[in-house]
Amino acid sequence: MKLETALTHQLNIKYPIIQAGMAGSTTPELVATVSNKGGLGMIGAGYMSPDQLAEEITQVQELTDLDFAVNLFVPADARYSSDDVNKMQEYLQPLREEYDVARPEVDMTKEEDNFNGAIELVVQMHVPVVSFTFGIPNQHIIKRLKSNGITLIGTATSVEEATALESAGIDIIVAQGSEAGGHRGSFTVNEQGHTPLIGTMSLVPQIVDQVEVPVIAAGGIMDGRGLVAGLALGASAVQLGTAFLTTDESGASQLKKASILQSDETQTVITHVYSGKMARGISNQFVSYLNQFDGRIPEYPIQNQLTTAIRKASAQRGDEQFTHLWCGQTPRLAQSKRASELVDQIIAEARKILE
Amino acid sequence: MKLETALTHQLNIKYPIIQAGMAGSTTPELVATVSNKGGLGMIGAGYMSPDQLAEEITQVQELTDLDFAVNLFVPADARYSSDDVNKMQEYLQPLREEYDVARPEVDMTKEEDNFNGAIELVVQMHVPVVSFTFGIPNQHIIKRLKSNGITLIGTATSVEEATALESAGIDIIVAQGSEAGGHRGSFTVNEQGHTPLIGTMSLVPQIVDQVEVPVIAAGGIMDGRGLVAGLALGASAVQLGTAFLTTDESGASQLKKASILQSDETQTVITHVYSGKMARGISNQFVSYLNQFDGRIPEYPIQNQLTTAIRKASAQRGDEQFTHLWCGQTPRLAQSKRASELVDQIIAEARKILE
Repeated sequence: MKLETALTHQLNIKYPIIQAGMAGSTTPELVATVSNKGGLGMIGAGYMSPDQLAEEITQVQELTDLDFAVNLFVPADARYSSDDVNKMQEYLQPLREEYDVARPEVDMTKEEDNFNGAIELVVQMHVPVVSFTFGIPNQHIIKRLKSNGITLIGTATSVEEATALESAGIDIIVAQGSEAGGHRGSFTVNEQGHTPLIGTMSLVPQIVDQVEVPVIAAGGIMDGRGLVAGLALGASAVQLGTAFLTTDESGASQLKKASILQSDETQTVITHVYSGKMARGISNQFVSYLNQFDGRIPEYPIQNQLTTAIRKASAQRGDEQFTHLWCGQTPRLAQSKRASELVDQIIAEARKILE
Repeated sequence: MKLETALTHQLNIKYPIIQAGMAGSTTPELVATVSNKGGLGMIGAGYMSPDQLAEEITQVQELTDLDFAVNLFVPADARYSSDDVNKMQEYLQPLREEYDVARPEVDMTKEEDNFNGAIELVVQMHVPVVSFTFGIPNQHIIKRLKSNGITLIGTATSVEEATALESAGIDIIVAQGSEAGGHRGSFTVNEQGHTPLIGTMSLVPQIVDQVEVPVIAAGGIMDGRGLVAGLALGASAVQLGTAFLTTDESGASQLKKASILQSDETQTVITHVYSGKMARGISNQFVSYLNQFDGRIPEYPIQNQLTTAIRKASAQRGDEQFTHLWCGQTPRLAQSKRASELVDQIIAEARKILE
């Protein structure tokens, strides 16, 4: 087993370490540091406007000459009724009053516009790698990006999703296990209407066996042990989110970093109450309050739009109880240190295991 | 990284492969085959009377001179009300009529008597290793077994459970990830009253870091890739259930083996409707029917006693819809082959990865 794989050559990186596209929490410093240390840094552009993204890309390009990636959320039609939205608006009203934030309007065009703008931008600005979460972009977009030499990464939480991504022409597949923090990349449901929730140990080899393209293992991986485990399962690299979230260069607030560093493995839940899509975070009063809501949670991006201002205000006030606290199932291994040191440490640990 | 570990020496085995104690599905042939091939075979004695267990141990001892283990369920007081039990009895009545089985009486003394009988038996019959599921036996039992030279294995689904087992004097800890099929070994709940459900990739290193005793990785592991991944995470061996369940020597019926071999990774659920304790199996009509029950599911072993005859009759009739179909999250890697070949294959794969 070697740390150098066909994928590290394909991605033009030294080490098989990918920094996950943690939308809202990456900084140009983090992205550039990971790339400069030999991994693949990634701008989490899921919530960015094209202007914001252009600024981020420019900054990353000033900080590194090496390859990096941009992660985008694939937009989908949200099914929702005004009744559901109004009911949720009412339910959130006491929190808006508590945190002194205005009642937002639902805007279904923004996601699509931002996404299409981002696609043009990554082409114009010569971003070498684009990663997608929440599904498969259409063939027009895939062909446009690939014809411009851009390498495409997709996110799968089941074999079915992985083979669909491969069939659509995606070059590399992230197998996102149930341990992963933040949003689930799922875009299918099973017969019971549930999105897949398969542990990394199970998911990676089953996807590896069913696709020809390289696979990146994600979910629960924090250190050199996880890196070697991911490679042993047949992955060509690993993707780490929570591990980078607590580093100095991460854009996560001290409040959020402290929440992760103080948590244990039993304290996270998977919930769609924050955004309308399933995501793993540390349970808090926001989750308990929304779990008592007796209506239907509007789908993403509606619920996300309805709750964003409350969550920001709570975090700004230093209150971790009404903001999201994305975190995977391995918080005990999270460390407060520089991202550059973290990459060095992971590689040193992996080499020792492989001796 | 080496396949020979301090634990393989401690357990007197050649390879770091433990066959999980799949209560109801082990046979003396399976247990002896795994031990004879260099792993640790295990009698799943969770539902056995002392007489049955004595017979099984005798048969295993006739088939191998090597060490093997016995897995026992640690009894606990079940909280239940007659009202809950009566309501469940009524709800199950149509199934009893369909499958022509009698309404059982609840018996809370049997579990404790069987457990105490099994403890005496393993001492008398010189069983070298005893493994526990569902908690920690009392100090009297732990001391009695250890003073007779018996090595003790406990099952943990969180760090808290692992440290509790270690403090009680248990020698080796199985870290059972959420991918695992069959019963969850959990004996704690979090603030929300949920039992831990931590993926193997997250659970193993967090437990390894917090205990001094050797750790066995379990959950989702089916082949040489999983074995190497488990060792990379810091475990000293791996435990496989589903992988052995479909082997020729397993006691699982053809119906149950076929269900696993035809499943994919999205088809299992964790449910307590079969036994009153959480367990992972392939979803079927029994699960959907019981999910519509609007009362409280009686705790283990009550619910287990109430549903056992129905499940047996359904399986005997060749109907997989009203029996339990224990299965982990990696059914795509399940194989129909001899257990001896499976062990050989796992070791050959692991050696190739480690080259």
